[in-house]
Amino acid sequence: MLFLMLLDCLGTVAFAVSGALKGVRKNMDIFGVAVLALVTAIGGGTLRDSLLHKPIFWLQDPTYVVLSLGFAVLVFVLYPMFAQTEKALLVFDAVGLGGFTAIGAVKAMDAGTGAVGIITMAVLTGVGGGMIRDILARDVPVVLREEIYASACIVGAVLFWGMVQIGAGQTAAACVAAGVTIVIRLLSILLGWRLPRKSIDTDEADMPS
Amino acid sequence: MLFLMLLDCLGTVAFAVSGALKGVRKNMDIFGVAVLALVTAIGGGTLRDSLLHKPIFWLQDPTYVVLSLGFAVLVFVLYPMFAQTEKALLVFDAVGLGGFTAIGAVKAMDAGTGAVGIITMAVLTGVGGGMIRDILARDVPVVLREEIYASACIVGAVLFWGMVQIGAGQTAAACVAAGVTIVIRLLSILLGWRLPRKSIDTDEADMPS
Amino acid sequence: MLFLMLLDCLGTVAFAVSGALKGVRKNMDIFGVAVLALVTAIGGGTLRDSLLHKPIFWLQDPTYVVLSLGFAVLVFVLYPMFAQTEKALLVFDAVGLGGFTAIGAVKAMDAGTGAVGIITMAVLTGVGGGMIRDILARDVPVVLREEIYASACIVGAVLFWGMVQIGAGQTAAACVAAGVTIVIRLLSILLGWRLPRKSIDTDEADMPS
Repeated sequence: MLFLMLLDCLGTVAFAVSGALKGVRKNMDIFGVAVLALVTAIGGGTLRDSLLHKPIFWLQDPTYVVLSLGFAVLVFVLYPMFAQTEKALLVFDAVGLGGFTAIGAVKAMDAGTGAVGIITMAVLTGVGGGMIRDILARDVPVVLREEIYASACIVGAVLFWGMVQIGAGQTAAACVAAGVTIVIRLLSILLGWRLPRKSIDTDEADMPS
Repeated sequence: MLFLMLLDCLGTVAFAVSGALKGVRKNMDIFGVAVLALVTAIGGGTLRDSLLHKPIFWLQDPTYVVLSLGFAVLVFVLYPMFAQTEKALLVFDAVGLGGFTAIGAVKAMDAGTGAVGIITMAVLTGVGGGMIRDILARDVPVVLREEIYASACIVGAVLFWGMVQIGAGQTAAACVAAGVTIVIRLLSILLGWRLPRKSIDTDEADMPS
Repeated sequence: MLFLMLLDCLGTVAFAVSGALKGVRKNMDIFGVAVLALVTAIGGGTLRDSLLHKPIFWLQDPTYVVLSLGFAVLVFVLYPMFAQTEKALLVFDAVGLGGFTAIGAVKAMDAGTGAVGIITMAVLTGVGGGMIRDILARDVPVVLREEIYASACIVGAVLFWGMVQIGAGQTAAACVAAGVTIVIRLLSILLGWRLPRKSIDTDEADMPS
């Protein structure tokens, strides 16, 4: 699956850069920046492999770690340059989101889970890293508050499962799932789509529990 | 263990609703609300199964996921109605707490852990989901600050272990443990019990580390 | 490895005390204090064992749990006394950091991981517990922001790996790694070393995402 490997690689870099940028902005030292880059890039897949009781992917292929740390250092050293690329990053990030979603779906299916397992693992692979990044940086995870992000993963994962159910090959289904996830995410950025939320008065919204 | 299955079901719903309510109050979109409902309902058991190296329960029986997501949607759509049921929810929540505690103790014992394993896994199953909910919503976990909550689990878990030690059947011990946990929790709400805490001056309490 | 066992024991106590102190300062009840003590002392090793798919160390030897909870109670009861020992605690904490780092490296190597696995697992064992402590207490993890802490682990872990590569025995390498980690950490405290960080304007540093 050369196509998925390419998306995986682009996604790892985009996620690592987004983590590193947040680390610099939160005034972290270079170790903190490296950790945020790393957990953003590999956190989702780590949760997935852990829940599926499979060997953790980056312990088997350390390329992911080396790549993430390399870009963390680049962002740290060349921060002003990377800070200006944020719009371009959104595109890479969408590409990574699609790739990670498809990879998560494939791995869950290989592990023998059903529809619920495939969909949750696809979404977890796509959004888990960003959630850990935001928790460590003490932000409410952006994925819980903003825009069509996880929703794109869900559509992709459901599509993957549906295609496999009607007899499509796993590779074809994965490529379609990745592509659709990417397109939905990019369209949502371009067109400003948002999910519905409740309007409740602010006092209640700030309640501590 | 029909009794435990019933408590498990009630607890899943109560925990999902409490997560969904917090999501709506934190101004999350419907995906965020669904995630908070899900992690609250299945987070504790997921940590338990992961630490025991057992298959994750909701990957084997997706009913838990479907049930949680269904109630997340209900809370999102009918928020004003659910917001008024919070007192009733405390009762369901206590029922779930007792059921989850007993189930955690049983699963830890089946996995061959000793007293410390049984008690920690029982407590983790009972309170882990709520802790993840609060971390994602960026609150200090309520269980660390407030009331007799985890303490009720601890009493239930110790009782379970003690009864099994003196020869009681696992099912009987589990039912007693669940019942006692529920009763302690409900009494603590009715009577306003709180655990001791230190009075230290506020400046120090707000120190960043 | 009697030397490592001693460091392990001292580290567990120091980490448990640091977690319990933070719990008291955050105005938690005694259960919260106990949980913070526990996760600080055993959190890093728990993540390590979970990622390596090994049995969780404290489920196999509950001494760690009992020791941590015992010191949590001591800190809670004798808070003013412990609050005055914070400088001494820094030394114990450094000792624990070195011990945990070496133990993490040894366990990762025993599990058959390569250089990246050994180094990440060593660092995770050393700093993971403190990170969970800070997340639960709703602080940005101190390790991401402050001082030479994780960096000392990294140097120790790389040294361990290098020594094993050139034929040193595992025990010798572990002792050297622990010692070097401890010395670097203590020197950094004495001499006020800090890692580089970017100076960016505060508005950006406070951006929510």
